[in-house]
Amino acid sequence: MSIEDSDPAQVRVDLLGPVLIVGTGLIGTSVALALRRAGVPVLLSDTDPTALSQAALRCADTAPGPWLPPRLVVVATPPGVAAEAIAAALDEHPQATVTDVTSVKGRVVTGVDERGGDPARFVGGHPMAGREITGPAAATADLFEDRPWVVTPTESSDPDAVALVRDLALVCGAVPVVMTPGEHDRAVALTSHTPQILSSLLAARLLAAQPAEVAVSGQGLRDLTRIAGSDAELWTQILTANAGPVADVLSALAADLAAVVQTLRVAESATGFPAGAESRALATPLREALVRGNLGRNRLPGKHGAAQAPYAIVPVMIADRPGELGRLFVAAGEADANLEDVRIEHVLGRPTGLVELSVRPEQARSLAQVLRVRGFAVRS
Amino acid sequence: MSIEDSDPAQVRVDLLGPVLIVGTGLIGTSVALALRRAGVPVLLSDTDPTALSQAALRCADTAPGPWLPPRLVVVATPPGVAAEAIAAALDEHPQATVTDVTSVKGRVVTGVDERGGDPARFVGGHPMAGREITGPAAATADLFEDRPWVVTPTESSDPDAVALVRDLALVCGAVPVVMTPGEHDRAVALTSHTPQILSSLLAARLLAAQPAEVAVSGQGLRDLTRIAGSDAELWTQILTANAGPVADVLSALAADLAAVVQTLRVAESATGFPAGAESRALATPLREALVRGNLGRNRLPGKHGAAQAPYAIVPVMIADRPGELGRLFVAAGEADANLEDVRIEHVLGRPTGLVELSVRPEQARSLAQVLRVRGFAVRS
Repeated sequence: MSIEDSDPAQVRVDLLGPVLIVGTGLIGTSVALALRRAGVPVLLSDTDPTALSQAALRCADTAPGPWLPPRLVVVATPPGVAAEAIAAALDEHPQATVTDVTSVKGRVVTGVDERGGDPARFVGGHPMAGREITGPAAATADLFEDRPWVVTPTESSDPDAVALVRDLALVCGAVPVVMTPGEHDRAVALTSHTPQILSSLLAARLLAAQPAEVAVSGQGLRDLTRIAGSDAELWTQILTANAGPVADVLSALAADLAAVVQTLRVAESATGFPAGAESRALATPLREALVRGNLGRNRLPGKHGAAQAPYAIVPVMIADRPGELGRLFVAAGEADANLEDVRIEHVLGRPTGLVELSVRPEQARSLAQVLRVRGFAVRS
Repeated sequence: MSIEDSDPAQVRVDLLGPVLIVGTGLIGTSVALALRRAGVPVLLSDTDPTALSQAALRCADTAPGPWLPPRLVVVATPPGVAAEAIAAALDEHPQATVTDVTSVKGRVVTGVDERGGDPARFVGGHPMAGREITGPAAATADLFEDRPWVVTPTESSDPDAVALVRDLALVCGAVPVVMTPGEHDRAVALTSHTPQILSSLLAARLLAAQPAEVAVSGQGLRDLTRIAGSDAELWTQILTANAGPVADVLSALAADLAAVVQTLRVAESATGFPAGAESRALATPLREALVRGNLGRNRLPGKHGAAQAPYAIVPVMIADRPGELGRLFVAAGEADANLEDVRIEHVLGRPTGLVELSVRPEQARSLAQVLRVRGFAVRS
C-alpha cells in the first residue's frame, strides 16, 4: 500500500494517444472533461445514445483529428456490467491498458478473469468522488481534485499499465493510493460501507419516534444520519458486491454492541447515578469502549496525533439577522486571517448563531480582537 | 409533549426575587450570566471555593442589595450528587421552586422521592447545550441561545413551578420543550446516547486498520466519528444512568444489524454484481433498511418533509491558495446573498476546495452569477 502526494502540475502527462471512455455518466464524463482540460484527446462511448450525445456536447472542444487507437480505456459503466465491458475492451483494443472506476474491486477482477481478459493490461481503479446528482450533465472537470483515487494492481499487472493508471489519476487532479483489490475492499468495508449501514439503521429508528423526541435531537444525530439520505438502490448494489468484507466488519461491531448492551442491562438494575468504585465495577467495558472510540477517532487524518497541522478555533456567536454570516466573513477577511475551515452548529434543525472559524494558531488572537472591535461576540 | 417557539424578547420575566445557582461549573455559571444579562439577581453556591470565586468574578456586576430568599434554585452539580442537592434545596428553601440541569431525568426524580423531597416544587430540566471545555471560566451568557431546554414535570408538579422553570429557559434564550421524565430519557436514549455509542464503536474499529485504509476515508466516516472524541468518563456516567432506555434502543438496533449481516452472508456466496431479479431476491432486507434510513433521515427538522424552508445549494470549487475562503465569502456578501449555511467538504483529512453555500432558492441564481463574474468555479 502506498499513498502519493505528488504535485499534479509537475507530473509528466504520459497519456500518449487518446483515452477511450466507455460509459458517459457522471464519473466517465468528468474523467473526459478533466482529460480535455489537460489537453489529452478523448473518445467517448455509451450504449445510451442520449447520455453519449450529452457527454459529447460537454466535451465539445474535442479536436476530431485523425483517429488513433486508444492507449488507455476507462470503463465507467454501472457496476453490474463492468467486468463484461472490461473484458470486451481488452479484446477489442489489444494495445491498450484498461481500467475501471467501480467502487468494489475484488469481484471485478474475478469477473474479468472468468471472461478470459488479459490480466496484465487490466488495472482497476476507484476514484473516491461523487455528487448527489448523476448523469453527464452533472459532470465537472474538477470532480477528482485532491480526492483519493485508489489504483488496484494484481500480481499479474504490467508495471507500465499500473504507471499509466496512476498518471490518469494525477492528470485528473486526484491523489493516487495503490492497494491490492482485497485491501481496497476491506478498507472501504470499514471506512465507507459500514458507516453507510450504521447511518441508515440509526436513521430508520427515527421512524418510530415521537415528533418532540426528534425535535430535541442535536448535532450528533445530524452528523450520524447525514449519509442515510444516500441512494438506496445504488448502495444495495455496492453492499451486496462487497458482502463478505462488510459482513466481517458488521459482525465484529455486533459483538462490540452486544457487550455494551450487557453492561447496560447490569447497570439498569442499579439505582441512582453510579459513581466511584460502583461505577467502575459496573461500567468498565462501557468506559473502555468509549476510550477506544477516542483513540480510534484520533487515527483519522488531520486529527490530533496525525501529521496535519492543528488549527486554532475561534468561536463566534452571531445574531439571528439576515446577512450576519456574510458580515462575519467579510470582517474575518479584513482581519487578514486565512480561514482554514468553518463549522456552523445546527440545533432544532437549523443553523444556529454559533460559528467556529479555524485559523492557524498564530492568527487566532488577532482575528478574535478584530471581530470583537467589529462588534461580534467572540467566546473566550 | 409540546415545543414552544416564543420570542424571548416578548416573554414576561417572571423571576421575581433572586435565583440561587447551586454548582458553578460551565452550566451553572452560564445560567447565572444569562440571568444577570436579563437583570435577574443571582446568588451563587459551590462546595469548591475555587470554582465559586471564579464564577463570582464572572458575575462581578451582581448588585449585592438586600438578601432575599431565592424564589428559584437551579441545581447544576455533577449528576451523581444532583438528587441529594435537590432534596437539600427543597428542605432549606421551603418557598422556592427547585430545578436541575441533569442530562438524565428519571433517576433524579426517583432519588428526590427517596429523600422525601417535596415533589410539587421540584421540576427537572435539561438545557441541551455544552462546550468542549468545562468550568466557570468557559461559561457564557449565550450558551443556551436557541437551544432546546427540556422541562420535565411529573404528575405531582405544581403548575406555577412548571411555569417558572419554563420562564428560566426563555430568559436564558432557550426553546422550552415540555416532556415527562420518561419521555425525555427515551428521547435522549435514541437521539443522543445511541449515536454516541455507535460513533465510539465505529471509531474504535479504526484502531486495527492499516494507515492507508484510514487515509482513504471520506466525509461519511468523518461525520460518523466526530462525537467519538467525547469525554469518556462523563459519558460513562450518563449512559449508565440511562441504562434501560439506551439498552432498549441498542437491542433493537442489534436485531436490525443481525438481519443485514444475514442478508450479506447470503449475498457473499453469490458471484459477480447481482442485478435484476437476482439482486432483488438477495438484497430485499438490505434495500428496505436503506430506504427506511432515507425516510427516517427525512424526519429530522429542517430536512425534506419537515416544516423548515428548504435552501438551495450553490457548490463552488475554490483554489488551494491562502485567503481563498475569505475571498469567497467577501464575494458572496457583495452579491447580497444571505448565507443560511456553509459546508466545506473534507477529504484526506483536510478541508478541500469544495464549498457548499446554502441560500434561499430565489437567491441561488444571482449568487452563482456574481461568483462566476468574480472568477470562482461554480458547479452547475
